[in-house]
Amino acid sequence: MNFTLKTFSLGLAASIAPTLVLAQDTAPTEVSYILTTLLFLIGGFLVFFMACGFAMLEAGLVRSKNVTMQLTKNMGLFGLACIFYYLVGFNLMYPGDAWIIPNLLGGFTPTVLEPVGLAAADADLSYATVGSDFFFQLMFCAATASIVSGAVAERVKLWPFLIFTVVLTALIYPIQASWKWGGGFLDNAGFLDFAGSTVVHSVGGWAALAGALILGARIGKYKDGKVIPMVASNLPLATLGTFILWLGWFGFNGGSQLAMGTVGDIADISRIFVNTNAAAAAGAIAALILTQVIYKKPDLTMILNGALAGLVSITAEPLTPSIGAATLIGAVGGVIVVFGVPFLDKLKIDDVVGAIPVHLFCGIWGTIAVVFTNSDASIGTQLYSIMVVGLFTFTLSGIAWYILKVTMGIRVTEEEEIVGLDKSELGMEAYHIQA
Amino acid sequence: MNFTLKTFSLGLAASIAPTLVLAQDTAPTEVSYILTTLLFLIGGFLVFFMACGFAMLEAGLVRSKNVTMQLTKNMGLFGLACIFYYLVGFNLMYPGDAWIIPNLLGGFTPTVLEPVGLAAADADLSYATVGSDFFFQLMFCAATASIVSGAVAERVKLWPFLIFTVVLTALIYPIQASWKWGGGFLDNAGFLDFAGSTVVHSVGGWAALAGALILGARIGKYKDGKVIPMVASNLPLATLGTFILWLGWFGFNGGSQLAMGTVGDIADISRIFVNTNAAAAAGAIAALILTQVIYKKPDLTMILNGALAGLVSITAEPLTPSIGAATLIGAVGGVIVVFGVPFLDKLKIDDVVGAIPVHLFCGIWGTIAVVFTNSDASIGTQLYSIMVVGLFTFTLSGIAWYILKVTMGIRVTEEEEIVGLDKSELGMEAYHIQA
Amino acid sequence: MNFTLKTFSLGLAASIAPTLVLAQDTAPTEVSYILTTLLFLIGGFLVFFMACGFAMLEAGLVRSKNVTMQLTKNMGLFGLACIFYYLVGFNLMYPGDAWIIPNLLGGFTPTVLEPVGLAAADADLSYATVGSDFFFQLMFCAATASIVSGAVAERVKLWPFLIFTVVLTALIYPIQASWKWGGGFLDNAGFLDFAGSTVVHSVGGWAALAGALILGARIGKYKDGKVIPMVASNLPLATLGTFILWLGWFGFNGGSQLAMGTVGDIADISRIFVNTNAAAAAGAIAALILTQVIYKKPDLTMILNGALAGLVSITAEPLTPSIGAATLIGAVGGVIVVFGVPFLDKLKIDDVVGAIPVHLFCGIWGTIAVVFTNSDASIGTQLYSIMVVGLFTFTLSGIAWYILKVTMGIRVTEEEEIVGLDKSELGMEAYHIQA
Repeated sequence: MNFTLKTFSLGLAASIAPTLVLAQDTAPTEVSYILTTLLFLIGGFLVFFMACGFAMLEAGLVRSKNVTMQLTKNMGLFGLACIFYYLVGFNLMYPGDAWIIPNLLGGFTPTVLEPVGLAAADADLSYATVGSDFFFQLMFCAATASIVSGAVAERVKLWPFLIFTVVLTALIYPIQASWKWGGGFLDNAGFLDFAGSTVVHSVGGWAALAGALILGARIGKYKDGKVIPMVASNLPLATLGTFILWLGWFGFNGGSQLAMGTVGDIADISRIFVNTNAAAAAGAIAALILTQVIYKKPDLTMILNGALAGLVSITAEPLTPSIGAATLIGAVGGVIVVFGVPFLDKLKIDDVVGAIPVHLFCGIWGTIAVVFTNSDASIGTQLYSIMVVGLFTFTLSGIAWYILKVTMGIRVTEEEEIVGLDKSELGMEAYHIQA
Repeated sequence: MNFTLKTFSLGLAASIAPTLVLAQDTAPTEVSYILTTLLFLIGGFLVFFMACGFAMLEAGLVRSKNVTMQLTKNMGLFGLACIFYYLVGFNLMYPGDAWIIPNLLGGFTPTVLEPVGLAAADADLSYATVGSDFFFQLMFCAATASIVSGAVAERVKLWPFLIFTVVLTALIYPIQASWKWGGGFLDNAGFLDFAGSTVVHSVGGWAALAGALILGARIGKYKDGKVIPMVASNLPLATLGTFILWLGWFGFNGGSQLAMGTVGDIADISRIFVNTNAAAAAGAIAALILTQVIYKKPDLTMILNGALAGLVSITAEPLTPSIGAATLIGAVGGVIVVFGVPFLDKLKIDDVVGAIPVHLFCGIWGTIAVVFTNSDASIGTQLYSIMVVGLFTFTLSGIAWYILKVTMGIRVTEEEEIVGLDKSELGMEAYHIQA
Repeated sequence: MNFTLKTFSLGLAASIAPTLVLAQDTAPTEVSYILTTLLFLIGGFLVFFMACGFAMLEAGLVRSKNVTMQLTKNMGLFGLACIFYYLVGFNLMYPGDAWIIPNLLGGFTPTVLEPVGLAAADADLSYATVGSDFFFQLMFCAATASIVSGAVAERVKLWPFLIFTVVLTALIYPIQASWKWGGGFLDNAGFLDFAGSTVVHSVGGWAALAGALILGARIGKYKDGKVIPMVASNLPLATLGTFILWLGWFGFNGGSQLAMGTVGDIADISRIFVNTNAAAAAGAIAALILTQVIYKKPDLTMILNGALAGLVSITAEPLTPSIGAATLIGAVGGVIVVFGVPFLDKLKIDDVVGAIPVHLFCGIWGTIAVVFTNSDASIGTQLYSIMVVGLFTFTLSGIAWYILKVTMGIRVTEEEEIVGLDKSELGMEAYHIQA
């Protein structure tokens, strides 16, 4: 597909018939290049919208007195993720031939896009534009950071949290993502993680777990051996966030096909949409039924997390399962969440929105489930990869949280926490409603 | 476009010039197949988002004490619709040659998608992937169920409602939809319903009407011959839901072109987008002006329902009208809603969100309006089809609601209703806001 | 690409090989036509959703007692913009050969779309469908009106505001937009404004400024030389609106490439997506840091407006900047907003949501910034165009507001304002929440 060939064929074609000249105007592989790029752009704006979904979900699930802060954190983390993934993350994640160590030493280079008005002859027509690829990948990195903010909500200080976001999006996420998606050693080992049950979701979950452990529980959460419920401020907002995340996931998983220029690719993307949706539906229904059976009352927050659990569970392999298998994989995710939330509470790990059960537990489950649907998957490699990524992320995150703790402090004072972060840290409350 | 022809033409082409080989890489009909599939995927995720729109609209319009329940119902109905349309509905709706009776007897088969990595030679290049078609059609089925939940809100018990949803999405919706969209007898009779004013919206409306009648009105709604207003809990939420529904409708109507591979198709989709938007705008403005004139004060809930009324009205034929005609059709929809809501109240039929005026009355209007814009439409056939579908849906829905009533009961106790379903059935209130 | 040539080539091609006939079925330029049209449809529905974003942002930022009115205004203005841009605006904006004066005299003609089932031979394959173009352009016009409603909130009467919307969307916006985008004198002079920092955003800002000046400040806003803070009712709603606007902006700027049929176009759109996002992120982070430094507490409403400021700033040229340059341009926008809001207050110009700093100040900044990234931009032409558009819009808007003031009055009574517009003008409050 080099320039000479194209010119040659153009000349030949022109001598035969006008049609051929027309055919050359948008040669077929240029069309596939456009279509795959379009996939990244559409997928990218859908995953972008997940930043909004996370913000609404978390703002709805925290207590009223911490809502403005939760929104501020979500706007802040997304903005910082954009800046630092551009400055460092993207090139760290896709190091090309120079992998990791040389890259870590010399490769902190900002992202550079194609020139304006890129010529077809200068494009790698077998893939897509760098711009769309960067846009799509950036949104995954930002999603990882969004996962953390919910777990450590209601007591972490704003700036240490934002600094942690920078560490996560500039270093931790891109380095481990390169092991799989940058063609690194986990990829070479045969690790399968289609859209990131491990690479995105469990990484967010591990970073959240490290933060929740080092921060400690909210005041009053665990008292005299009892778990004190702390009520969500706004369930419609949390439901809205869940629906937006569900919507965004079509881009998350569908875009991860990484190609839309052939019949096979578009049929695969169609399968992925269907399976992603089926898993979410099954996760929600599983949580609905299970909370009815266990608690005699369906629990909406569990149903919402059940849908998200189904989505995380199918993310490691949304393509190969049948609809029935996807339904089962998602339903198991919903079950995991219903048991995972009280399990964490038993360990006195205070995860405000259930991010760890949803993204870490179900991220692990989804990564393991690949062996049921993919004959080329090895349970050993899947478990090994889960552990490698987990150990790396949990350790580095723990170190980062710990350094932040001993240097600037990561937790607000007791009084500030009781008053609420909105009043104490921001001086701005979320709601002024005459109801 | 069979495999032999393609191979043959490839050989011939290769002998002439390189260009022709390029042209074969993504042969034109493969591109049109990809584009039509993409239409279903984009249309599908937009219609998916309508599930969120319905949830927000309904959660905003019910009273504060029933919001969590309304959200739970909407999450539950969507999840169940996904599962049962997969298990039963899709194949029941598109029975192929074996139509209805044989299908009803032997055809309860789950949906099966194409294999992973579908070869172009194995695809029906004249249409789209089964996966994308299923995804798109599923969302229509789920929308039908979402219509019902608003009308019967604030007093129906959760589980009977969800069981009704299963009956609706697995049986009632697919069977009647097959009569038109599955190539059944209404289609053969010349019934025109482009995107489902009747097949989707009036069906949801009939099912809602049957439910509202059998359930009875909310306690205190009709008292001493007066209609007691029951205030909406959250108008921004209802407005958000309306905008999301409006957005989703571009996918709903636009995707119903069922093809995007030619100049004619994309121009038609463009017309549909413009007309859909014009009808919604006109419905909103008609309701704005009319409520100003009648009540001296514009009524926001009427304006929102006016926009939805315009959308439902244009859904039977969003393609052929001029923009002006679409504007008029939508405006009439807005007028119908402004008069339809108090008309239902006069009959003491308690429809909490106005779903019956919007989806049933305007669904009928839109289906009739086709005769004004389509010279091939027969008013007799349109009316006949409206009645057949209405009779079928209303009867089966009535039977289903009635069986549920006499077996497990469909209505909460008086005390539960007064306390509110959130506290009594779920033990979880929607808002905890320090305002 | 005229009809004769195409027919001729078809005949020739058919005589050579089957492939050529296939190639003709969806000739490459037909594909590019479909793709560019698709760009307008996707871009259009994203920009449509900005109407929702504005409504949520404004409803969240006004006081609780004026929320229903703000939603009513936003629904009303959007509906009217749709109707009047169809009736007058579109053809006034794209006058073809007959420019402005002849057009103003005789050209008030409604928009007419292509016939149903447009033949490829009848299409201008070098661009896109009229329908998609109208749909896309309509949404820009409506966005302009949405900008105004926030600035004049909480004291303007409903109907005068809606009449102003008609003047703005039917006349002021289309006329000045024709000067640049209709091929008018500013375009001929070399004025650069890719997606409308001036043509859309500053126009909305000028119209808002004229309104805010003529209306005067809200009661109690400026008292004894002090600025009295009036608290936002719902910050999650405002944040949701901001995220939706950010999402819509990908369509706003990306669609303004006006072509998606070549490698160069899709690569350009990719650049635009990346730069648009980078500017928004930088605007938010700049406001976050700056409010921390100045006020010692980050201000969420400033962060939200900072993101929007970044978006407005990059809108005049989202294509040519590097990611780094886009980040800087957006960051400057964020800084402008942080200083612009108190600056307006010092002048006692009461802009409820900060629309003037965001859309007017940053619209000007973005238009000027083009000279830093585009070697063919002239600072003189940019400033001249900013002033011409500003003078025209501000003058006509001022006249319109003034006529409305002296004829029907534009401001509610003092008592109505204190009670709140929801109760006094609409008799319907936004929230009834048991919290």
